[in-house]
Amino acid sequence: MKKAIRFFTLSFIIAVFTSCSSNPNSKNSTLSNKDPLSSWNNVTSKTSVIDFVRAVTDKNNLRFVPVEDRIAVFDNDGTLWSEQPAYFQLFFAMDRIKELAPEHPEWKGIQPYKAVLENDMQALAASGEHGLVKLVLTTHSGMNIEEFSESVKQWISTTKHPTKNVTFDKLVYQPMLELLQYLRNNGFSTYIVSGGGVDFMRAIVTEVYGIPSEQIIGSTIKTEFQIVNGNPEIIRLAELDFIDDKEGKPVAIQRIIGKKPIFCAGNSDGDLAMMQWTASNQQPSFMLYVHHTDSVREWAYDRNSHIGRFDKGLDEANEKGWTVVDMENDWNIIYPNDVK
Amino acid sequence: MKKAIRFFTLSFIIAVFTSCSSNPNSKNSTLSNKDPLSSWNNVTSKTSVIDFVRAVTDKNNLRFVPVEDRIAVFDNDGTLWSEQPAYFQLFFAMDRIKELAPEHPEWKGIQPYKAVLENDMQALAASGEHGLVKLVLTTHSGMNIEEFSESVKQWISTTKHPTKNVTFDKLVYQPMLELLQYLRNNGFSTYIVSGGGVDFMRAIVTEVYGIPSEQIIGSTIKTEFQIVNGNPEIIRLAELDFIDDKEGKPVAIQRIIGKKPIFCAGNSDGDLAMMQWTASNQQPSFMLYVHHTDSVREWAYDRNSHIGRFDKGLDEANEKGWTVVDMENDWNIIYPNDVK
Repeated sequence: MKKAIRFFTLSFIIAVFTSCSSNPNSKNSTLSNKDPLSSWNNVTSKTSVIDFVRAVTDKNNLRFVPVEDRIAVFDNDGTLWSEQPAYFQLFFAMDRIKELAPEHPEWKGIQPYKAVLENDMQALAASGEHGLVKLVLTTHSGMNIEEFSESVKQWISTTKHPTKNVTFDKLVYQPMLELLQYLRNNGFSTYIVSGGGVDFMRAIVTEVYGIPSEQIIGSTIKTEFQIVNGNPEIIRLAELDFIDDKEGKPVAIQRIIGKKPIFCAGNSDGDLAMMQWTASNQQPSFMLYVHHTDSVREWAYDRNSHIGRFDKGLDEANEKGWTVVDMENDWNIIYPNDVK
Repeated sequence: MKKAIRFFTLSFIIAVFTSCSSNPNSKNSTLSNKDPLSSWNNVTSKTSVIDFVRAVTDKNNLRFVPVEDRIAVFDNDGTLWSEQPAYFQLFFAMDRIKELAPEHPEWKGIQPYKAVLENDMQALAASGEHGLVKLVLTTHSGMNIEEFSESVKQWISTTKHPTKNVTFDKLVYQPMLELLQYLRNNGFSTYIVSGGGVDFMRAIVTEVYGIPSEQIIGSTIKTEFQIVNGNPEIIRLAELDFIDDKEGKPVAIQRIIGKKPIFCAGNSDGDLAMMQWTASNQQPSFMLYVHHTDSVREWAYDRNSHIGRFDKGLDEANEKGWTVVDMENDWNIIYPNDVK
């Protein structure tokens, strides 16, 4: 159970659901429309990425990397979309509990369900790690894969973020969408490698990020192949399988991709192991950390945050000269479509 | 431990190391050089495959399938290369034991190592499933991923098959190499989904089949990310992780690819679940079983074989009208380069 805490940190519960205003319009962007990274200001992080991509795609450059080895891995929560005031998947789990509650009258008297139903965050916190895992397993299992996918799609299309007042899929970072596309245009395979549940992400992000299901790697619960009424089904079981966080990330990258990445993007200490793994590539590699510095347009947090803690990773990035994006100064837009 | 028996069936031990001659030259092939499946005789299995591929790639056909959904999955042992008189990975394990023996003088007195060192197949059989798993874990763990890959490459380039007298990588089926290429030329992604170890396969088959590491799915042992003398490494542990056989195959397909295949090739009951899974696709799908009928050029075995048993699968293929390749009659060549 120890590792389960990585899946959904307990601390989301005490995160403050702060409201915030935003200023999505560009500041000091002087780039033309043809700029592939037009939501990035003309800063070092941007020019470093472009210099790297130009080098590894140029056959005459000593740093050239063949297409088949141009593997890029991206964390999701806090790197491609927001993760405050709690991981979006946790909002889904809590909403599912409320949706399923009529079929489970007993939940009114059992933690952690009672806490969710009564919006009692203190009691939910008191249920501890064990309670949170119970929540996730309850809401993510006991159905086949199509039913689960449908329930996520239904939720994402109808539920709004508590402070941003848009559906959660609108809270993706426009500069990162451009970066994904720019890398793909240059022959990179862009993978998500996230602590989030793989099937939760697949139901949402293929369309949003343009990443096919086979390039989405995440945490998994156990599943089982069964013939149900003559039809083959894959049933989701209430048992953790693999937690794709911290040291789990390079392990999953090796098991599923089987190649060391040459590009890695993340935002927290949970991404440090895959950064180190990428940095150890004998081919040229690029490590990019997104630093949440914008308290006005997004959220500002790092070393002391319970969600997306960025402490050891920040030290190592500074020490090793990895690229750190300052969201406030480096990005002229945070979200697409002027989300405030 | 029950599932471990699927990884390496006990029965290889009693398989007869029969010698055989071959007749690799074409019989009644009347096809031109431009035929993408020129090693296939002009038989129903071949025309069915071609009809299917033409339909799903033709935008004006009702059976059209978009490129992103053209997922093809292939078993490896007995489907893409031979698996007699024992799975090739087991020869590797036994050879590794002999290679490592000087560092382990105690093995002379401990089963199953003693049996391997003395070529005592009866004693090896007596060590049972537990003994076989021990063999595999001993020889596939305790090193980092690069060292393991190197040991496999070294073995495959130097060790010859006991009766065919060529290195094991020469025992791939030429007609299946053509089928893989034909599917890829028509926009299919061709995956291996095998009970064999994923890193064992990756060290060999990317080059042989033209399949990149990220499209090779197999059984896994647990691994761990460690910083060793300042360098990140992934270390292979002596613990089974996932057995990619039988019901495990559709489970792995869903977990890693996240899409139901439209094309599935296998040769044994171990492939039946992924055949059923593919057949349940709402899009058009094609199920192809390779039937080992050629006792002269390859090996003939099916319902009563301990390796690659093809019994329930054969019944279901006949019942449901899936395509069954008769190796003796349908293929004018078995192996490339006139291997006899």
